[in-house]
Amino acid sequence: MSENSTNELVAEAARLDDGDELAKLRERFALDDDTVYLDGNSLGALPHTVAPRLAEVVTHEWGRLRIRSWDESGWWTAPERVGDRVGRLIGAAPGQVVVGDSTSVNVFKAVVAAVRIAQEDARGDNRGDIVRDEILVDETTFPTDGYIARSAARLTGCEPRPLPPGEIAAAVGPRTAVVLVNHVDYRTGRLHDLPGITAAARAAGARVVWDLCHSAGALPVDLDAHGVDFAVGCTYKYLNGGPGSPAYLYVARELQPRFDSPLPGWNSHADPFGMDPAYRPADGALRGRVGTPDILSLLALEAALDVWDGVTVEAVRAKSLALTDFFLSCVERHVPAGRVESVSPAAHAERGSQVSLRCLDAAAVMAELIRRGVVGDFRRPDVLRFGFTPLYTSFADAERAARVLGEVLRDVGEVG
Amino acid sequence: MSENSTNELVAEAARLDDGDELAKLRERFALDDDTVYLDGNSLGALPHTVAPRLAEVVTHEWGRLRIRSWDESGWWTAPERVGDRVGRLIGAAPGQVVVGDSTSVNVFKAVVAAVRIAQEDARGDNRGDIVRDEILVDETTFPTDGYIARSAARLTGCEPRPLPPGEIAAAVGPRTAVVLVNHVDYRTGRLHDLPGITAAARAAGARVVWDLCHSAGALPVDLDAHGVDFAVGCTYKYLNGGPGSPAYLYVARELQPRFDSPLPGWNSHADPFGMDPAYRPADGALRGRVGTPDILSLLALEAALDVWDGVTVEAVRAKSLALTDFFLSCVERHVPAGRVESVSPAAHAERGSQVSLRCLDAAAVMAELIRRGVVGDFRRPDVLRFGFTPLYTSFADAERAARVLGEVLRDVGEVG
Repeated sequence: MSENSTNELVAEAARLDDGDELAKLRERFALDDDTVYLDGNSLGALPHTVAPRLAEVVTHEWGRLRIRSWDESGWWTAPERVGDRVGRLIGAAPGQVVVGDSTSVNVFKAVVAAVRIAQEDARGDNRGDIVRDEILVDETTFPTDGYIARSAARLTGCEPRPLPPGEIAAAVGPRTAVVLVNHVDYRTGRLHDLPGITAAARAAGARVVWDLCHSAGALPVDLDAHGVDFAVGCTYKYLNGGPGSPAYLYVARELQPRFDSPLPGWNSHADPFGMDPAYRPADGALRGRVGTPDILSLLALEAALDVWDGVTVEAVRAKSLALTDFFLSCVERHVPAGRVESVSPAAHAERGSQVSLRCLDAAAVMAELIRRGVVGDFRRPDVLRFGFTPLYTSFADAERAARVLGEVLRDVGEVG
Repeated sequence: MSENSTNELVAEAARLDDGDELAKLRERFALDDDTVYLDGNSLGALPHTVAPRLAEVVTHEWGRLRIRSWDESGWWTAPERVGDRVGRLIGAAPGQVVVGDSTSVNVFKAVVAAVRIAQEDARGDNRGDIVRDEILVDETTFPTDGYIARSAARLTGCEPRPLPPGEIAAAVGPRTAVVLVNHVDYRTGRLHDLPGITAAARAAGARVVWDLCHSAGALPVDLDAHGVDFAVGCTYKYLNGGPGSPAYLYVARELQPRFDSPLPGWNSHADPFGMDPAYRPADGALRGRVGTPDILSLLALEAALDVWDGVTVEAVRAKSLALTDFFLSCVERHVPAGRVESVSPAAHAERGSQVSLRCLDAAAVMAELIRRGVVGDFRRPDVLRFGFTPLYTSFADAERAARVLGEVLRDVGEVG
């Protein structure tokens, strides 16, 4: 590519960054200008708020107050309190989200509880011909969801049925108990039709569980507005909660009294310090709790969520689409023809906040990209993933990433 | 009590502290001399190693290396690495303990997996008359174990059968699939007969799951030596891992190839980054993993375990018994007759590392104790709990706690 043409793209990136109302948010993160970090869809960057807050939690709340902090420092209620803050970003009114455990564990709670509700509904219909014993699973799902769904099926006497997400709405039938789908495909970045699949599942009498790992914090989800039953997600990608930070569970308010958890720990008891041998579940979102919450990680996440102060998900979505559009156009101009192929949808309505490029020798190409300061990741067998986090990714980052990718592919081509 | 007599006890405490080879370990913890902290059986005190290590993890490993830390900083292998360090304290040879999730979630994994193994054994015996469909549960258990055992029973078609721990060994029969018992009772501090119950369960063809929450780090457990099948425990009591720090799961080596987890997350896959839709479990302890490990809490725990450098559990146990003996004798001399009654066993072989005293108005008495700098806790309806952590509790602490308890009871008696 000519130097002029590169200069044009660099200038265009500068113009876009100048006009970006979210640009100043980058200051809220620990980032260095040497690196273009496009792996926030795997591990979000560190918000500056986390380290001082965690130091306070450790030194003062644990170190000095010790056991008193469960009450005095608000530890005990953190799962619901932080849950409400996550809820704001996924369109859930307060009182429906609880933070804790891993995504996998929350998928298990949600799928088993959803099967129980769907089967109870079917019995309530007094129609002996309806046996809800099928769990429809997005066949392109992140593997853990599929493994856990099969385990939930085995333990509840259901059959798992994997299907392409695009066929799920049409396939939901009278046998379907639960539909488990990823909002955004982790590999391709494809955004699935949450309103349509949810409506189809509900119309057929099934319940739906959405995995929001790759959409929460990147685009509007609007769980309440679309009548979603259950949702789960991690907090270490676009929510920047830190490595392995606790996941969350959304249980729609109207289902909470019927939420019958397969993991009824003492933290979800109506009177946890009554130490009652008989389980009596609490009301509300905290019925999704299990054991003692992991306070250090939970409060690190709470501090990380401060970066969202004054930010709307709608503004993030607008910038995300502009960033991925711009990146794709830079790739088209910087990368030698035919060397990469985007597997991420071109249509905005079907695109998450990442761009995945299929590429020969993708593992080696990504290793070289990282060596040259452009951090994305590689997914077998042949995918380069570039995640765009509008809170801290600039248009200049997008241009540089595409430019370095072009250089790497030319160099690899020359060498190999 | 006379001033002379108090002086004698204070002098005796000083002599005991002078002769205590573990006394210098107290320096490894953030403790102040104003407070006698006897609630380490609920939340262990803060080791000085934690804050600087956590700051490094956040600022350098997450903040600068970001995604690279999964490999370069050893994040990915932390659950097994930290598991081996916990293993050393509970008599488990390397490769059998994995850290992650809460105790409740680990009870669920262990009980369901144990039922599956016991039922498979019974089928292998080709004896059609043996149906292993019963889960014997310690009826004095910490509530969460009972709730989770009942959930596991419901999902596997078993019956839960609560029994006093002392009756379990005799009650194990041909229908028993699993026995779930607490090593030390959270309320009374009673130490149950791990070798005897384990042997009885195994002899009857059942599998046994031990909850070590109140014994690990306080006394020798010797899982391998006693042929235990499964064990779980938390790390925030005598292991000082911090509020809600991750729990652990022990799966005896010979059972690992048969460990069929009800929570088969992607982290326990033989090839996690293969992203294979078909689940194929990893070998070894890491088969007990589920989702992405919670790194901040896990590495805080790892740093906290440094306080065990050069310390044996046997020395800790010897001091623990000396401390609780001394506390009981101080209580006898400081506390007005008839005002408290110990519900902790007098026999060393049956005593954990806490002393529980039944007392009228126990909630108010504990509140006043805490106000006067002696921190234990209250358990309904009438129990004062005092936990002794030999790594940082001194004989002077024990004497002062008993003395202040006597003062409080005299003052409360005068007022009320």
